[in-house]
Amino acid sequence: MMLMEIKDDFTNNLKKDDSKNFITSKHGAGGSIMQNLIQNCFVKNLSSENSWKEKFNVEISLEDLDDGAVVNDTVIATDSHVVKPTFFPGGDIGKLSISGTINDVSVMGAEPMALTFGLILESGYPRNNLERILKSMGDTCKQAGVYVVTGDTKVVEKGSLDGIMINTSGIGRRNSFLDKNIDVVKKYRKFDARWLSDSNLREGDKIIVSGTVGDHGITILSAQKGYDFDIISDVTPMNKVIQGILEVGGVVSIKDATRGGLGNVLHEWSEKSNVGIVVKDSRIPVKNSVKEACEILGINPLHTANEGKIVIGCVAKKAEEILSVLHEFTEAKDAEIIGQAEKVFGNHVLIEKEHGKVILESPEGDPVPRVC
Amino acid sequence: MMLMEIKDDFTNNLKKDDSKNFITSKHGAGGSIMQNLIQNCFVKNLSSENSWKEKFNVEISLEDLDDGAVVNDTVIATDSHVVKPTFFPGGDIGKLSISGTINDVSVMGAEPMALTFGLILESGYPRNNLERILKSMGDTCKQAGVYVVTGDTKVVEKGSLDGIMINTSGIGRRNSFLDKNIDVVKKYRKFDARWLSDSNLREGDKIIVSGTVGDHGITILSAQKGYDFDIISDVTPMNKVIQGILEVGGVVSIKDATRGGLGNVLHEWSEKSNVGIVVKDSRIPVKNSVKEACEILGINPLHTANEGKIVIGCVAKKAEEILSVLHEFTEAKDAEIIGQAEKVFGNHVLIEKEHGKVILESPEGDPVPRVC
Repeated sequence: MMLMEIKDDFTNNLKKDDSKNFITSKHGAGGSIMQNLIQNCFVKNLSSENSWKEKFNVEISLEDLDDGAVVNDTVIATDSHVVKPTFFPGGDIGKLSISGTINDVSVMGAEPMALTFGLILESGYPRNNLERILKSMGDTCKQAGVYVVTGDTKVVEKGSLDGIMINTSGIGRRNSFLDKNIDVVKKYRKFDARWLSDSNLREGDKIIVSGTVGDHGITILSAQKGYDFDIISDVTPMNKVIQGILEVGGVVSIKDATRGGLGNVLHEWSEKSNVGIVVKDSRIPVKNSVKEACEILGINPLHTANEGKIVIGCVAKKAEEILSVLHEFTEAKDAEIIGQAEKVFGNHVLIEKEHGKVILESPEGDPVPRVC
Repeated sequence: MMLMEIKDDFTNNLKKDDSKNFITSKHGAGGSIMQNLIQNCFVKNLSSENSWKEKFNVEISLEDLDDGAVVNDTVIATDSHVVKPTFFPGGDIGKLSISGTINDVSVMGAEPMALTFGLILESGYPRNNLERILKSMGDTCKQAGVYVVTGDTKVVEKGSLDGIMINTSGIGRRNSFLDKNIDVVKKYRKFDARWLSDSNLREGDKIIVSGTVGDHGITILSAQKGYDFDIISDVTPMNKVIQGILEVGGVVSIKDATRGGLGNVLHEWSEKSNVGIVVKDSRIPVKNSVKEACEILGINPLHTANEGKIVIGCVAKKAEEILSVLHEFTEAKDAEIIGQAEKVFGNHVLIEKEHGKVILESPEGDPVPRVC
């Protein structure tokens, strides 16, 4: 019954998916359809000039499609949050919006300094809920040691928005351990990047995931459908964990495994770094409860969102040391080395299962609507 | 008939205005009710720590409620745009979102470097419209010489958003003429601020508005109501104009007269700078077409939004020179010196009319819903 209900949803989505003329849910789901929209519509229309890049020392920009950009040695990232429901086991839209942007800034190799928020509220929204969300934002800021410096509020008439949506943007400065981290990388292999961008992975680099995958996505889907699985979201700021591993050194790239999950991270790496990737299925940490829920729901936990999980690419010689440091943090106690970048025909992402290696297909997008 | 229709709208709004328990349109309209929400809900819950301010050299933060913030010598500002209709005479939500954030960054005394966007789209939104909006964003970026470096897209299901909403955030670095500008101010009076903040106005400073007021607000209201006034929005980036007047020197504060219009700017200045303000009604530039529309609609053009108008506070001795430079820019050809900061009992904002001075009351918020 449950499985059928979900399948029906997907079928409906596909029927409506006239992605040439209309925007569909897949255009915002972090997969191949969204990448296509970004390239053919956003990057095309928002192209910039080289003189501007030189003037402001723009090192990473829109066309790099990374987690953030780098301008004048400052990292900047932005995210809009439309998660449904607004309050869910383990968090709410407030905690999500603060954590998400802190993580996007941090994974570039920056120390997040400050955040902005843009609130859009529906007229009639209960003030109690707003207070609860703002308190949660404030608590998450305290937890991370990064605060909101400016904001904006808009209210639209009843019926033109369901409840509340929050944009957060954030800026960070070069992490004080980033140069030392890069020096460690250079002991083992050639490395000419200044930031931890998506294109830095090379054959031989190990891949580490900081904990169990799929928790957030399955929590949200359960809440949307009214299922009673015993799963809570992993949403949390990861800036202190990232600081910890940069102190070890040897990290070449970090990604925040949000929409599209771990699978999307691996595909973005293989595409932007031009490498094949092989991960061992048995090493990917997935909670038993999440595994069971995924089987019932017909969803792959590798393709659903996390909000407190990072995926780390590092030189092989430092992988064990980075793993030990990760295990010192509660947020990363389940971290595992799951595989490596290696020569694969067509630069595919391969999953090594008991019976052999299979290609992990790039999904059209996260299977859970409004997951973040 | 028209007047009655508008009045009815206001009466309905007031009846629904249970601002203690529910969010109403006035909470997002840039007036006193919004200020109250910001103080009692946002600033209270999002308070920061002094150690953080010291660590990142946070000079202007959330509690200053300025157009932007200053962190690590970088200005950051954010705005969400929910304007209705999305396309209007003189512009669209794309041009508005780019211009608004460029202006917010520039008025602090910064040179805008880069922008981010956060798009929220309703499933089923026509791709043609999206292309048109992105082209308009791109064109406005080119006009201003400031480009988008990163973005985020979310799609929500049909019925949970009406069409498209856009957040833009922006960062800027200290304008290269700001120090020289401040040196000029110091020739004439004491000045100890490092940025052009709202609290810098002092008795004797002159107030200049860069052009006719109310154009944008009345354009949007006309479009919402289907009236056929011959008015177009003034939406445009003002960074080059601001660059021009900083080169002259003597500017103490600049504000972007958006939601709540010129009136809101004058009230924010009088409150944050603790000064009275007197402006001459006859000197405030208002287009005849806007004046006529305002009379029919029962709206004060001083209280409605502009999107390409700045209000400048400067030392008296430099006012004429600044005015001449403003007149060299098409965007500021109608600039006028409209009054000055002076001793007024209760630090009121006074409008000098033919028959004498009257208090300009602080409105609850912009009379036009979804004006930006």
